[in-house]
Amino acid sequence: MTVIIGGTVRAPPRNLAALKPHMLAMLAASRAEDGCITYSYGEDVAEPGLIRVFEVWRDQAAIMAHFAAPHMAPWRAACAELGVSDRRLLAYEVASERPL
Amino acid sequence: MTVIIGGTVRAPPRNLAALKPHMLAMLAASRAEDGCITYSYGEDVAEPGLIRVFEVWRDQAAIMAHFAAPHMAPWRAACAELGVSDRRLLAYEVASERPL
Repeated sequence: MTVIIGGTVRAPPRNLAALKPHMLAMLAASRAEDGCITYSYGEDVAEPGLIRVFEVWRDQAAIMAHFAAPHMAPWRAACAELGVSDRRLLAYEVASERPL
Repeated sequence: MTVIIGGTVRAPPRNLAALKPHMLAMLAASRAEDGCITYSYGEDVAEPGLIRVFEVWRDQAAIMAHFAAPHMAPWRAACAELGVSDRRLLAYEVASERPL
């Protein structure tokens, strides 16, 4: 069953420029993973420093593999170093999808 | 059944500043609607002008009411005027959700 991960994390706005290459590396590495359908980060248009996460994965097994992927450790280290906090992510199992 | 709307639209990067007040107005008006759980716009961290849309609605009826809401007409007019295009949105029915 397809699984969406959606939600937010926060970064100090002064650290966004330093965080950006780490986000780009995570985007590239995650999108190359088996079972990754969508992987994205957006900067909220209303709240500086609020990063919107939206991911779509083929199934729960793909997400478990993602969490164990080698690129997760440097990402987590960068997040800790740059003050990424307030992680609020939900995992949604998808019953159906259609173009809107 | 909870419904997620997720995906992207594009705006010419030179028009993002002009689009911003319209996005803020849509955020406020949509979040005030009955059945709106989440409504957000993010600027993709990798692609300037790519706007990431993420919405969560209580059910399909709430989405139908949203599309008929009075604030949709000025939003659509602003999108047309400012060159918003390439609308790629999917509606996902949610079978379950859990904190990640």
